[in-house]
Amino acid sequence: MADASGAPRRRDAAATRQALLEAARRRFTRLGYDGTTLREVAADAGVNLALIKRYFDSKEGLFKAAIASTPRALGGPAGVPGDRARLADALSRQLSADAWPEFGEHPVLMLLRVSGDEQVDALRRAALQDFTRQILDGSGTGPEKDPERLLRAELLVALGVGVAVIRSAVGLQPLRDATPDALRGPLRDVIDALLGPESEPVEG
Amino acid sequence: MADASGAPRRRDAAATRQALLEAARRRFTRLGYDGTTLREVAADAGVNLALIKRYFDSKEGLFKAAIASTPRALGGPAGVPGDRARLADALSRQLSADAWPEFGEHPVLMLLRVSGDEQVDALRRAALQDFTRQILDGSGTGPEKDPERLLRAELLVALGVGVAVIRSAVGLQPLRDATPDALRGPLRDVIDALLGPESEPVEG
Repeated sequence: MADASGAPRRRDAAATRQALLEAARRRFTRLGYDGTTLREVAADAGVNLALIKRYFDSKEGLFKAAIASTPRALGGPAGVPGDRARLADALSRQLSADAWPEFGEHPVLMLLRVSGDEQVDALRRAALQDFTRQILDGSGTGPEKDPERLLRAELLVALGVGVAVIRSAVGLQPLRDATPDALRGPLRDVIDALLGPESEPVEG
Repeated sequence: MADASGAPRRRDAAATRQALLEAARRRFTRLGYDGTTLREVAADAGVNLALIKRYFDSKEGLFKAAIASTPRALGGPAGVPGDRARLADALSRQLSADAWPEFGEHPVLMLLRVSGDEQVDALRRAALQDFTRQILDGSGTGPEKDPERLLRAELLVALGVGVAVIRSAVGLQPLRDATPDALRGPLRDVIDALLGPESEPVEG
């Protein structure tokens, strides 16, 4: 393993770590924790197996990093704070039938696998809390203090999780093949119902 | 097994079948298909193991019957056609934290276990379609022909599934411990947003 002993150039280290994370998310989402082997993850990323150990220590470490990075990897509503129409648009794209061809399933499913590991459970909770915050940020109603509004944002996260689970496990039609265009109107209605009317844009 | 050879009196047969189904739903929901043994189901129901074979043929037959009977067993909105407030009330009770102490989990989770068996998949789809119909029946907007309204009712089913999955797998607060009172308002808002205003009651 000559590769592994030579330190990679610094500008390649971040890219290698990123490639391993992406490959890990794909495998863990499609095949679960037990069905994923580090050898295949390394092969998918086109790097030496030893680099997983270097960057993530172990399979568990790789799984934890994959979970922790999932909310940002979904490219969710985080990028469009305060724009209600864009929030509805982002969610309808994320939850449409063909949104994740490279995963085979919606990557949020990775967060739902029962682990029994308390540290992993805490990471999964943190990832869903991150989604909830992204939704509140994107809702155009400002930051959240009221527990009812937090519950309402969590119900929107639950809707997304439910769509992913039903599509994966049951394939109910017309939900299974719903396009972003079909989802946008209903999701916009749910967002408005749960989060209330959009507030006036703040100048500046 | 002297018990098994004697035919039960006819009026006991339905009760025995029902007791076996209830015990099976509890075990399959908590422990999954593989974690459930017929011996324990029979013991829970207080009947002889051989009666499972008589009434359900096999473990697979028992699982299929348990799935097929789940929507009605949940005592969902089916009983209250056309009353929007009662639909919101029924859903908020079903989705609250302490709704299913005897299952340990929301029994809808039984429908989500990956089986790979096509006949089981069809039953699971039929059960979720049954929920969708119950919601449309209970929404006070009459029977459904429009595919968008079907999609909208399925999104409400997805919300319920998502709440059950998140509570079971991740325990996100405040959703995890939400009471019926906390859920009623937000769920009523979502129902109205997805299914439109309640129609006028029909005389008769």
